[in-house]
Amino acid sequence: YAEVGKMATDDYVGFTFFVGCMAMMAASAFFFLSMNTFDKKWRTSILVSGLITFIAAVHYWYMRDYWATYMESPTFFRYVDWVLTVPLMCVEFYLILRVAGAKKSLMWKLIFLSVVMLVTGYFGEAVYTTGTGPALWGFISGVAYFAIVYIIWFGEAKKLAEQAGGAVLAAHKTLCWFVLVGWAIYPLGYMAGTEGWYSFVGELGLNMDVIYNIGDAINKIGFGLVVYGLAVAATSTSE
Amino acid sequence: YAEVGKMATDDYVGFTFFVGCMAMMAASAFFFLSMNTFDKKWRTSILVSGLITFIAAVHYWYMRDYWATYMESPTFFRYVDWVLTVPLMCVEFYLILRVAGAKKSLMWKLIFLSVVMLVTGYFGEAVYTTGTGPALWGFISGVAYFAIVYIIWFGEAKKLAEQAGGAVLAAHKTLCWFVLVGWAIYPLGYMAGTEGWYSFVGELGLNMDVIYNIGDAINKIGFGLVVYGLAVAATSTSE
Ligand SMILES: CC1=C(/C=C/C(C)=C/C=C/C(C)=C/C=O)C(C)(C)CCC1
Ligand SMILES: CC1=C(/C=C/C(C)=C/C=C/C(C)=C/C=O)C(C)(C)CCC1
Repeated sequence: YAEVGKMATDDYVGFTFFVGCMAMMAASAFFFLSMNTFDKKWRTSILVSGLITFIAAVHYWYMRDYWATYMESPTFFRYVDWVLTVPLMCVEFYLILRVAGAKKSLMWKLIFLSVVMLVTGYFGEAVYTTGTGPALWGFISGVAYFAIVYIIWFGEAKKLAEQAGGAVLAAHKTLCWFVLVGWAIYPLGYMAGTEGWYSFVGELGLNMDVIYNIGDAINKIGFGLVVYGLAVAATSTSE
Repeated sequence: YAEVGKMATDDYVGFTFFVGCMAMMAASAFFFLSMNTFDKKWRTSILVSGLITFIAAVHYWYMRDYWATYMESPTFFRYVDWVLTVPLMCVEFYLILRVAGAKKSLMWKLIFLSVVMLVTGYFGEAVYTTGTGPALWGFISGVAYFAIVYIIWFGEAKKLAEQAGGAVLAAHKTLCWFVLVGWAIYPLGYMAGTEGWYSFVGELGLNMDVIYNIGDAINKIGFGLVVYGLAVAATSTSE
Protein backbone atom coordinates (compact mmCIF):
# COMPACT_ATOMS: atom_id res chain seq x y z
CA TYR A 1 0.00 0.00 0.00
CA ALA A 2 1.02 3.60 -0.40
CA GLU A 3 1.69 5.68 2.62
CA VAL A 4 -0.92 8.32 3.31
CA GLY A 5 0.03 11.65 4.82
CA LYS A 6 -1.82 13.14 7.75
CA MET A 7 -3.96 16.18 7.09
CA ALA A 8 -4.45 18.61 9.95
CA THR A 9 -8.13 18.71 10.86
CA ASP A 10 -8.14 22.50 10.69
CA ASP A 11 -6.37 22.72 7.35
CA TYR A 12 -9.26 24.28 5.47
CA VAL A 13 -7.15 25.13 2.47
CA GLY A 14 -6.11 21.50 2.19
CA PHE A 15 -9.74 20.50 2.61
CA THR A 16 -10.81 22.57 -0.40
CA PHE A 17 -7.98 21.09 -2.44
CA PHE A 18 -9.16 17.57 -1.62
CA VAL A 19 -12.82 18.28 -2.21
CA GLY A 20 -11.97 20.13 -5.40
CA CYS A 21 -9.88 17.27 -6.73
CA MET A 22 -12.57 14.68 -6.19
CA ALA A 23 -15.31 16.94 -7.51
CA MET A 24 -13.35 17.45 -10.71
CA MET A 25 -12.85 13.71 -11.14
CA ALA A 26 -16.52 13.00 -10.61
CA ALA A 27 -17.54 15.78 -12.97
CA SER A 28 -15.25 14.37 -15.67
CA ALA A 29 -16.79 10.93 -15.32
CA PHE A 30 -20.23 12.53 -15.54
CA PHE A 31 -19.51 14.48 -18.71
CA PHE A 32 -17.56 11.74 -20.44
CA LEU A 33 -20.06 9.02 -19.72
CA SER A 34 -23.13 11.02 -20.61
CA MET A 35 -21.92 12.58 -23.85
CA ASN A 36 -23.23 9.82 -26.07
CA THR A 37 -26.81 10.31 -24.93
CA PHE A 38 -26.97 13.58 -26.86
CA ASP A 39 -27.38 14.60 -30.47
CA LYS A 40 -24.11 14.46 -32.36
CA LYS A 41 -23.87 18.19 -32.64
CA TRP A 42 -23.72 18.65 -28.85
CA ARG A 43 -21.30 15.86 -28.10
CA THR A 44 -18.16 17.87 -28.73
CA SER A 45 -19.34 20.56 -26.32
CA ILE A 46 -19.99 18.03 -23.56
CA LEU A 47 -16.67 16.36 -24.30
CA VAL A 48 -14.88 19.70 -23.94
CA SER A 49 -16.65 20.28 -20.61
CA GLY A 50 -15.28 16.93 -19.52
CA LEU A 51 -11.79 17.80 -20.72
CA ILE A 52 -11.83 20.98 -18.66
CA THR A 53 -12.69 19.15 -15.43
CA PHE A 54 -10.34 16.28 -16.32
CA ILE A 55 -7.40 18.64 -16.74
CA ALA A 56 -8.35 20.29 -13.46
CA ALA A 57 -8.60 16.92 -11.68
CA VAL A 58 -5.02 16.09 -12.61
CA HIS A 59 -3.72 19.47 -11.51
CA TYR A 60 -5.72 19.41 -8.28
CA TRP A 61 -4.11 16.08 -7.55
CA TYR A 62 -0.73 17.82 -7.66
CA MET A 63 -1.83 20.98 -5.96
CA ARG A 64 -3.36 19.04 -3.11
CA ASP A 65 -0.12 17.14 -2.52
CA TYR A 66 1.97 20.23 -3.04
CA TRP A 67 -0.05 22.08 -0.47
CA ALA A 68 0.11 19.18 1.97
CA THR A 69 3.89 18.99 1.56
CA TYR A 70 4.91 22.65 1.65
CA MET A 71 1.90 24.58 2.96
CA GLU A 72 2.51 27.02 0.15
CA SER A 73 0.46 28.19 -2.81
CA PRO A 74 1.00 25.92 -5.80
CA THR A 75 1.17 28.91 -8.14
CA PHE A 76 3.07 27.05 -10.82
CA PHE A 77 0.48 24.28 -11.17
CA ARG A 78 -2.39 26.71 -10.83
CA TYR A 79 -1.30 28.57 -13.91
CA VAL A 80 -0.45 25.44 -15.88
CA ASP A 81 -4.04 24.47 -15.23
CA TRP A 82 -5.57 27.80 -16.20
CA VAL A 83 -3.51 28.23 -19.32
CA LEU A 84 -5.13 25.05 -20.63
CA THR A 85 -8.64 25.28 -19.22
CA VAL A 86 -9.47 28.93 -19.84
CA PRO A 87 -8.72 28.73 -23.58
CA LEU A 88 -10.87 25.58 -23.67
CA MET A 89 -13.71 27.62 -22.21
CA CYS A 90 -13.26 30.05 -25.08
CA VAL A 91 -13.54 27.07 -27.42
CA GLU A 92 -16.76 26.20 -25.65
CA PHE A 93 -18.25 29.64 -26.38
CA TYR A 94 -17.34 29.16 -30.01
CA LEU A 95 -18.81 25.65 -30.19
CA ILE A 96 -22.10 26.83 -28.78
CA LEU A 97 -22.34 29.75 -31.17
CA ARG A 98 -21.33 27.74 -34.19
CA VAL A 99 -24.99 26.94 -34.86
CA ALA A 100 -25.42 30.67 -35.50
CA GLY A 101 -22.40 30.69 -37.81
CA ALA A 102 -19.64 31.80 -35.41
CA LYS A 103 -16.28 32.12 -37.12
CA LYS A 104 -13.00 30.63 -35.88
CA SER A 105 -11.60 34.16 -35.65
CA LEU A 106 -13.93 34.83 -32.70
CA MET A 107 -12.51 31.79 -30.94
CA TRP A 108 -8.92 32.84 -31.56
CA LYS A 109 -9.63 36.36 -30.37
CA LEU A 110 -11.02 35.06 -27.08
CA ILE A 111 -8.17 32.57 -26.68
CA PHE A 112 -5.58 35.27 -27.31
CA LEU A 113 -7.14 37.58 -24.73
CA SER A 114 -7.37 34.81 -22.17
CA VAL A 115 -3.70 33.93 -22.62
CA VAL A 116 -2.72 37.59 -22.20
CA MET A 117 -4.85 37.72 -19.05
CA LEU A 118 -3.13 34.67 -17.59
CA VAL A 119 0.46 35.40 -18.60
CA THR A 120 0.30 38.90 -17.14
CA GLY A 121 -1.41 37.52 -14.04
CA TYR A 122 1.42 35.02 -13.64
CA PHE A 123 3.96 37.82 -13.87
CA GLY A 124 2.23 39.63 -11.05
CA GLU A 125 1.77 36.57 -8.90
CA ALA A 126 5.05 34.73 -9.41
CA VAL A 127 7.66 36.91 -11.08
CA TYR A 128 7.36 40.61 -10.19
CA THR A 129 6.02 40.06 -6.72
CA THR A 130 7.22 43.16 -4.92
CA GLY A 131 6.48 46.88 -4.94
CA THR A 132 4.05 47.93 -7.63
CA GLY A 133 4.61 44.72 -9.65
CA PRO A 134 1.48 42.80 -8.66
CA ALA A 135 -0.83 45.82 -8.94
CA LEU A 136 0.55 46.77 -12.33
CA TRP A 137 0.47 43.32 -13.91
CA GLY A 138 -2.86 42.60 -12.30
CA PHE A 139 -4.22 45.74 -13.92
CA ILE A 140 -3.07 44.69 -17.39
CA SER A 141 -4.55 41.26 -16.77
CA GLY A 142 -7.79 42.93 -15.78
CA VAL A 143 -7.91 44.89 -19.02
CA ALA A 144 -7.71 41.66 -21.02
CA TYR A 145 -10.39 40.21 -18.77
CA PHE A 146 -12.73 43.10 -19.50
CA ALA A 147 -12.07 42.80 -23.20
CA ILE A 148 -13.38 39.23 -22.97
CA VAL A 149 -16.38 40.39 -20.97
CA TYR A 150 -17.08 43.04 -23.59
CA ILE A 151 -16.95 40.66 -26.54
CA ILE A 152 -19.32 38.14 -25.04
CA TRP A 153 -21.71 40.61 -23.39
CA PHE A 154 -21.99 43.27 -26.06
CA GLY A 155 -19.82 42.41 -29.05
CA GLU A 156 -19.69 39.79 -31.75
CA ALA A 157 -20.58 36.84 -29.53
CA LYS A 158 -23.70 38.56 -28.25
CA LYS A 159 -24.99 39.18 -31.77
CA LEU A 160 -24.47 35.56 -32.75
CA ALA A 161 -26.29 34.34 -29.66
CA GLU A 162 -29.22 36.54 -30.56
CA GLN A 163 -29.32 35.16 -34.06
CA ALA A 164 -29.36 31.65 -32.68
CA GLY A 165 -32.09 32.42 -30.18
CA GLY A 166 -33.89 29.81 -28.07
CA ALA A 167 -31.87 27.51 -25.84
CA VAL A 168 -28.57 28.75 -27.24
CA LEU A 169 -29.35 32.34 -26.34
CA ALA A 170 -30.45 31.33 -22.85
CA ALA A 171 -27.28 29.29 -22.27
CA HIS A 172 -25.11 32.07 -23.65
CA LYS A 173 -26.67 34.50 -21.22
CA THR A 174 -25.95 32.24 -18.28
CA LEU A 175 -22.37 31.77 -19.41
CA CYS A 176 -22.02 35.55 -19.69
CA TRP A 177 -22.93 35.80 -16.02
CA PHE A 178 -20.37 33.13 -15.20
CA VAL A 179 -17.68 35.20 -16.86
CA LEU A 180 -18.75 38.46 -15.25
CA VAL A 181 -19.41 37.22 -11.74
CA GLY A 182 -17.81 33.78 -11.50
CA TRP A 183 -14.53 34.81 -13.05
CA ALA A 184 -14.42 37.95 -10.90
CA ILE A 185 -13.71 35.60 -7.98
CA TYR A 186 -10.16 35.21 -9.28
CA PRO A 187 -9.01 38.83 -9.13
CA LEU A 188 -10.35 38.81 -5.58
CA GLY A 189 -8.13 35.86 -4.74
CA TYR A 190 -5.22 37.61 -6.40
CA MET A 191 -5.78 40.67 -4.24
CA ALA A 192 -5.86 38.48 -1.15
CA GLY A 193 -2.59 36.78 -2.04
CA THR A 194 -0.34 39.47 -3.48
CA GLU A 195 0.81 42.75 -2.04
CA GLY A 196 -0.43 46.12 -3.28
CA TRP A 197 -2.69 49.02 -2.40
CA TYR A 198 -5.44 46.42 -2.00
CA SER A 199 -3.72 44.52 0.80
CA PHE A 200 -6.72 45.06 3.06
CA VAL A 201 -8.39 42.17 1.22
CA GLY A 202 -5.85 39.69 2.54
CA GLU A 203 -6.04 41.28 5.96
CA LEU A 204 -9.73 40.46 6.11
CA GLY A 205 -8.55 36.89 6.57
CA LEU A 206 -9.39 35.74 3.07
CA ASN A 207 -7.09 33.09 1.70
CA MET A 208 -6.05 33.14 -1.93
CA ASP A 209 -6.12 29.39 -2.46
CA VAL A 210 -9.51 28.91 -0.86
CA ILE A 211 -10.89 31.64 -3.12
CA TYR A 212 -9.29 30.17 -6.23
CA ASN A 213 -10.57 26.70 -5.35
CA ILE A 214 -14.11 27.94 -4.90
CA GLY A 215 -13.83 29.86 -8.15
CA ASP A 216 -12.64 26.77 -9.99
CA ALA A 217 -15.44 24.60 -8.65
CA ILE A 218 -18.05 27.12 -9.74
CA ASN A 219 -16.56 27.98 -13.06
CA LYS A 220 -15.37 24.62 -14.30
CA ILE A 221 -18.14 22.37 -13.07
CA GLY A 222 -20.90 24.97 -13.21
CA PHE A 223 -19.91 26.14 -16.67
CA GLY A 224 -19.93 22.53 -17.87
CA LEU A 225 -23.35 21.94 -16.35
CA VAL A 226 -24.78 24.92 -18.22
CA VAL A 227 -23.53 23.42 -21.47
CA TYR A 228 -24.97 20.09 -20.39
CA GLY A 229 -28.32 21.75 -19.71
CA LEU A 230 -28.25 23.34 -23.13
CA ALA A 231 -27.67 19.95 -24.74
CA VAL A 232 -30.57 18.49 -22.75
CA ALA A 233 -32.90 21.31 -23.79
CA ALA A 234 -31.85 21.25 -27.43
CA THR A 235 -31.98 17.48 -27.72
CA SER A 236 -35.50 17.18 -26.36
CA THR A 237 -36.93 19.93 -28.57
CA SER A 238 -35.41 18.39 -31.68
CA GLU A 239 -36.99 15.05 -31.00
CA TYR B 1 -0.53 12.08 -0.38
CA ALA B 2 2.57 11.70 -2.48
CA GLU B 3 5.45 14.08 -2.17
CA VAL B 4 5.58 16.60 -4.95
CA GLY B 5 8.73 18.38 -6.05
CA LYS B 6 8.94 22.13 -6.11
CA MET B 7 8.97 23.80 -9.44
CA ALA B 8 10.80 27.11 -9.67
CA THR B 9 8.34 29.76 -10.82
CA ASP B 10 10.80 30.89 -13.50
CA ASP B 11 11.45 27.39 -14.83
CA TYR B 12 9.90 27.95 -18.22
CA VAL B 13 11.31 24.75 -19.65
CA GLY B 14 9.62 22.83 -16.84
CA PHE B 15 6.46 24.81 -17.51
CA THR B 16 6.34 23.68 -21.13
CA PHE B 17 6.92 20.07 -20.06
CA PHE B 18 3.98 20.28 -17.66
CA VAL B 19 1.64 22.02 -20.05
CA GLY B 20 2.72 19.63 -22.79
CA CYS B 21 2.05 16.57 -20.67
CA MET B 22 -1.42 17.66 -19.70
CA ALA B 23 -2.27 18.82 -23.21
CA MET B 24 -1.31 15.40 -24.56
CA MET B 25 -3.48 13.65 -21.98
CA ALA B 26 -6.45 15.87 -22.76
CA ALA B 27 -5.95 15.43 -26.49
CA SER B 28 -5.90 11.65 -26.08
CA ALA B 29 -9.14 11.71 -24.13
CA PHE B 30 -10.60 13.90 -26.86
CA PHE B 31 -9.61 11.63 -29.74
CA PHE B 32 -10.46 8.38 -27.97
CA LEU B 33 -13.86 9.55 -26.78
CA SER B 34 -14.93 11.14 -30.03
CA MET B 35 -13.84 8.45 -32.46
CA ASN B 36 -17.17 6.61 -32.40
CA THR B 37 -19.11 9.62 -33.61
CA PHE B 38 -17.58 9.18 -37.06
CA ASP B 39 -18.11 6.96 -40.06
CA LYS B 40 -16.36 3.64 -39.66
CA LYS B 41 -13.80 4.40 -42.30
CA TRP B 42 -12.43 7.38 -40.34
CA ARG B 43 -12.34 5.75 -36.93
CA THR B 44 -8.92 4.17 -37.33
CA SER B 45 -7.41 7.51 -38.30
CA ILE B 46 -8.85 9.24 -35.24
CA LEU B 47 -7.74 6.34 -33.08
CA VAL B 48 -4.20 6.65 -34.40
CA SER B 49 -4.26 10.39 -33.66
CA GLY B 50 -5.17 9.46 -30.11
CA LEU B 51 -2.40 6.88 -29.90
CA ILE B 52 0.15 9.47 -30.96
CA THR B 53 -0.88 11.91 -28.22
CA PHE B 54 -1.25 9.08 -25.70
CA ILE B 55 2.28 7.83 -26.32
CA ALA B 56 3.47 11.39 -26.00
CA ALA B 57 1.55 11.90 -22.75
CA VAL B 58 3.36 9.00 -21.13
CA HIS B 59 6.77 10.17 -22.30
CA TYR B 60 6.07 13.74 -21.29
CA TRP B 61 5.25 12.43 -17.84
CA TYR B 62 8.79 11.01 -17.65
CA MET B 63 10.46 13.91 -19.35
CA ARG B 64 8.78 16.39 -17.05
CA ASP B 65 10.00 14.54 -13.96
CA TYR B 66 13.41 13.94 -15.51
CA TRP B 67 13.77 17.63 -16.19
CA ALA B 68 12.55 18.58 -12.71
CA THR B 69 15.05 16.17 -11.14
CA TYR B 70 18.20 16.78 -13.19
CA MET B 71 17.58 20.02 -15.11
CA GLU B 72 18.96 18.24 -18.14
CA SER B 73 17.52 17.43 -21.56
CA PRO B 74 15.72 14.07 -21.49
CA THR B 75 17.21 13.11 -24.85
CA PHE B 76 16.73 9.39 -24.32
CA PHE B 77 12.97 9.65 -23.68
CA ARG B 78 12.57 12.23 -26.40
CA TYR B 79 13.82 9.82 -29.01
CA VAL B 80 11.93 6.86 -27.58
CA ASP B 81 8.85 9.00 -28.08
CA TRP B 82 9.68 10.11 -31.61
CA VAL B 83 10.67 6.68 -32.81
CA LEU B 84 7.13 5.56 -32.03
CA THR B 85 5.09 8.64 -32.89
CA VAL B 86 6.72 9.72 -36.14
CA PRO B 87 6.21 6.33 -37.82
CA LEU B 88 2.60 6.46 -36.63
CA MET B 89 2.24 9.78 -38.41
CA CYS B 90 3.45 8.05 -41.55
CA VAL B 91 0.74 5.45 -40.98
CA GLU B 92 -1.70 8.33 -40.73
CA PHE B 93 -0.72 9.62 -44.18
CA TYR B 94 -1.27 6.16 -45.55
CA LEU B 95 -4.67 5.73 -43.86
CA ILE B 96 -5.92 8.98 -45.27
CA LEU B 97 -4.76 8.17 -48.78
CA ARG B 98 -6.12 4.65 -48.69
CA VAL B 99 -9.42 5.89 -50.10
CA ALA B 100 -7.45 6.75 -53.24
CA GLY B 101 -5.84 3.32 -53.28
CA ALA B 102 -2.53 4.01 -51.49
CA LYS B 103 -0.30 0.96 -51.28
CA LYS B 104 1.39 -0.32 -48.13
CA SER B 105 4.74 0.18 -49.82
CA LEU B 106 4.23 3.95 -49.59
CA MET B 107 3.70 3.61 -45.86
CA TRP B 108 6.83 1.50 -45.39
CA LYS B 109 8.89 3.91 -47.44
CA LEU B 110 7.84 6.81 -45.24
CA ILE B 111 8.38 4.80 -42.06
CA PHE B 112 11.84 3.74 -43.17
CA LEU B 113 12.86 7.31 -43.96
CA SER B 114 11.51 8.59 -40.66
CA VAL B 115 13.47 5.99 -38.73
CA VAL B 116 16.65 6.91 -40.60
CA MET B 117 15.95 10.56 -39.81
CA LEU B 118 15.56 9.83 -36.10
CA VAL B 119 18.39 7.34 -35.63
CA THR B 120 20.90 9.64 -37.30
CA GLY B 121 19.53 12.57 -35.31
CA TYR B 122 20.07 10.59 -32.12
CA PHE B 123 23.66 9.89 -33.11
CA GLY B 124 24.27 13.61 -33.49
CA GLU B 125 22.47 14.59 -30.33
CA ALA B 126 23.54 11.87 -27.92
CA VAL B 127 26.44 9.83 -29.28
CA TYR B 128 28.82 11.84 -31.48
CA THR B 129 28.31 15.08 -29.67
CA THR B 130 31.62 16.82 -30.28
CA GLY B 131 33.50 18.33 -33.20
CA THR B 132 31.77 17.87 -36.52
CA GLY B 133 29.61 15.00 -35.20
CA PRO B 134 26.34 16.84 -34.64
CA ALA B 135 26.55 18.80 -37.89
CA LEU B 136 27.36 15.69 -39.91
CA TRP B 137 24.68 13.43 -38.45
CA GLY B 138 22.20 16.27 -38.46
CA PHE B 139 22.87 16.71 -42.17
CA ILE B 140 22.17 13.05 -42.92
CA SER B 141 19.02 13.26 -40.82
CA GLY B 142 18.01 16.33 -42.79
CA VAL B 143 18.42 14.46 -46.08
CA ALA B 144 15.97 11.80 -44.90
CA TYR B 145 13.64 14.56 -43.75
CA PHE B 146 13.67 16.17 -47.19
CA ALA B 147 13.05 12.82 -48.82
CA ILE B 148 9.83 12.61 -46.78
CA VAL B 149 8.92 16.15 -47.74
CA TYR B 150 9.53 15.31 -51.39
CA ILE B 151 7.33 12.21 -51.38
CA ILE B 152 4.36 13.88 -49.79
CA TRP B 153 4.64 17.23 -51.57
CA PHE B 154 5.53 16.12 -55.09
CA GLY B 155 5.79 12.34 -55.25
CA GLU B 156 3.53 9.35 -54.94
CA ALA B 157 1.50 10.67 -52.00
CA LYS B 158 0.70 13.91 -53.80
CA LYS B 159 -0.69 12.04 -56.81
CA LEU B 160 -2.92 9.89 -54.65
CA ALA B 161 -4.27 12.92 -52.80
CA GLU B 162 -5.15 14.52 -56.12
CA GLN B 163 -6.97 11.40 -57.21
CA ALA B 164 -8.96 11.42 -53.98
CA GLY B 165 -9.81 15.13 -54.25
CA GLY B 166 -12.30 16.91 -51.99
CA ALA B 167 -11.79 16.83 -48.24
CA VAL B 168 -8.95 14.31 -48.50
CA LEU B 169 -6.95 16.55 -50.82
CA ALA B 170 -7.55 19.55 -48.56
CA ALA B 171 -6.45 17.65 -45.46
CA HIS B 172 -3.42 16.25 -47.25
CA LYS B 173 -2.38 19.76 -48.22
CA THR B 174 -2.63 20.95 -44.63
CA LEU B 175 -0.62 17.96 -43.43
CA CYS B 176 2.02 18.71 -46.06
CA TRP B 177 2.43 22.15 -44.52
CA PHE B 178 2.74 20.58 -41.09
CA VAL B 179 5.60 18.45 -42.33
CA LEU B 180 7.35 21.30 -44.13
CA VAL B 181 6.93 24.02 -41.52
CA GLY B 182 5.89 22.26 -38.30
CA TRP B 183 8.56 19.58 -38.50
CA ALA B 184 11.19 22.18 -39.39
CA ILE B 185 10.87 23.34 -35.78
CA TYR B 186 12.87 20.27 -34.73
CA PRO B 187 16.08 20.89 -36.65
CA LEU B 188 15.94 24.40 -35.20
CA GLY B 189 15.84 22.94 -31.69
CA TYR B 190 18.69 20.62 -32.62
CA MET B 191 20.77 23.56 -33.75
CA ALA B 192 20.04 25.36 -30.48
CA GLY B 193 21.09 22.38 -28.39
CA THR B 194 24.11 20.85 -30.11
CA GLU B 195 27.41 22.38 -31.11
CA GLY B 196 28.40 23.09 -34.68
CA TRP B 197 28.86 25.88 -37.20
CA TYR B 198 25.28 26.88 -36.36
CA SER B 199 25.95 27.55 -32.69
CA PHE B 200 24.69 31.11 -33.08
CA VAL B 201 21.16 29.68 -32.82
CA GLY B 202 21.71 28.57 -29.22
CA GLU B 203 23.44 31.84 -28.46
CA LEU B 204 20.27 33.69 -29.41
CA GLY B 205 18.95 32.32 -26.14
CA LEU B 206 16.74 29.68 -27.70
CA ASN B 207 16.36 26.55 -25.63
CA MET B 208 16.28 23.17 -27.30
CA ASP B 209 13.68 21.62 -25.03
CA VAL B 210 11.30 24.54 -25.24
CA ILE B 211 11.53 24.39 -29.03
CA TYR B 212 10.99 20.63 -29.11
CA ASN B 213 8.03 20.95 -26.73
CA ILE B 214 6.39 23.62 -28.85
CA GLY B 215 7.03 21.51 -31.93
CA ASP B 216 5.44 18.48 -30.34
CA ALA B 217 2.34 20.38 -29.26
CA ILE B 218 1.84 21.74 -32.76
CA ASN B 219 2.67 18.57 -34.63
CA LYS B 220 1.04 15.93 -32.52
CA ILE B 221 -2.11 17.71 -31.44
CA GLY B 222 -2.43 19.94 -34.49
CA PHE B 223 -1.82 17.04 -36.87
CA GLY B 224 -4.47 15.01 -35.06
CA LEU B 225 -6.94 17.87 -35.22
CA VAL B 226 -6.50 18.12 -38.99
CA VAL B 227 -7.37 14.45 -39.27
CA TYR B 228 -10.31 15.07 -36.95
CA GLY B 229 -11.44 17.94 -39.14
CA LEU B 230 -11.21 15.74 -42.20
CA ALA B 231 -13.42 13.14 -40.52
CA VAL B 232 -15.93 15.85 -39.58
CA ALA B 233 -16.02 17.19 -43.13
CA ALA B 234 -16.25 13.76 -44.72
CA THR B 235 -18.87 12.48 -42.30
CA SER B 236 -21.26 15.37 -42.74
CA THR B 237 -21.06 15.37 -46.53
CA SER B 238 -21.71 11.64 -46.69
CA GLU B 239 -24.91 11.96 -44.72
C1 LIG C 1 -8.51 39.49 -13.95
C2 LIG C 1 -7.31 38.95 -13.22
C3 LIG C 1 -7.06 37.59 -13.13
C4 LIG C 1 -8.08 36.73 -13.71
C5 LIG C 1 -8.14 35.41 -13.70
C6 LIG C 1 -9.22 34.65 -14.23
C7 LIG C 1 -10.43 35.30 -14.77
C8 LIG C 1 -9.08 33.29 -14.23
C9 LIG C 1 -10.06 32.40 -14.67
C10 LIG C 1 -9.89 31.10 -14.49
C11 LIG C 1 -10.86 30.13 -14.85
C12 LIG C 1 -12.16 30.48 -15.42
C13 LIG C 1 -10.53 28.86 -14.62
C14 LIG C 1 -11.43 27.80 -14.77
O1 LIG C 1 -11.16 26.85 -15.47
C15 LIG C 1 -5.79 37.06 -12.48
C16 LIG C 1 -5.01 36.14 -13.44
C17 LIG C 1 -6.12 36.30 -11.19
C18 LIG C 1 -4.81 38.17 -12.14
C19 LIG C 1 -5.48 39.37 -11.60
C20 LIG C 1 -6.41 39.97 -12.60
C1 LIG D 1 15.70 17.09 -39.67
C2 LIG D 1 16.41 16.83 -38.36
C3 LIG D 1 15.71 16.33 -37.26
C4 LIG D 1 14.28 16.17 -37.44
C5 LIG D 1 13.38 15.79 -36.53
C6 LIG D 1 11.98 15.73 -36.77
C7 LIG D 1 11.39 16.19 -38.06
C8 LIG D 1 11.21 15.23 -35.78
C9 LIG D 1 9.81 15.13 -35.85
C10 LIG D 1 9.13 14.75 -34.76
C11 LIG D 1 7.72 14.71 -34.72
C12 LIG D 1 6.87 15.10 -35.87
C13 LIG D 1 7.18 14.31 -33.56
C14 LIG D 1 5.80 14.36 -33.32
O1 LIG D 1 5.20 13.38 -32.95
C15 LIG D 1 16.44 16.00 -35.96
C16 LIG D 1 16.18 14.56 -35.54
C17 LIG D 1 16.02 16.95 -34.85
C18 LIG D 1 17.96 16.09 -36.12
C19 LIG D 1 18.38 17.24 -36.93
C20 LIG D 1 17.85 17.17 -38.33
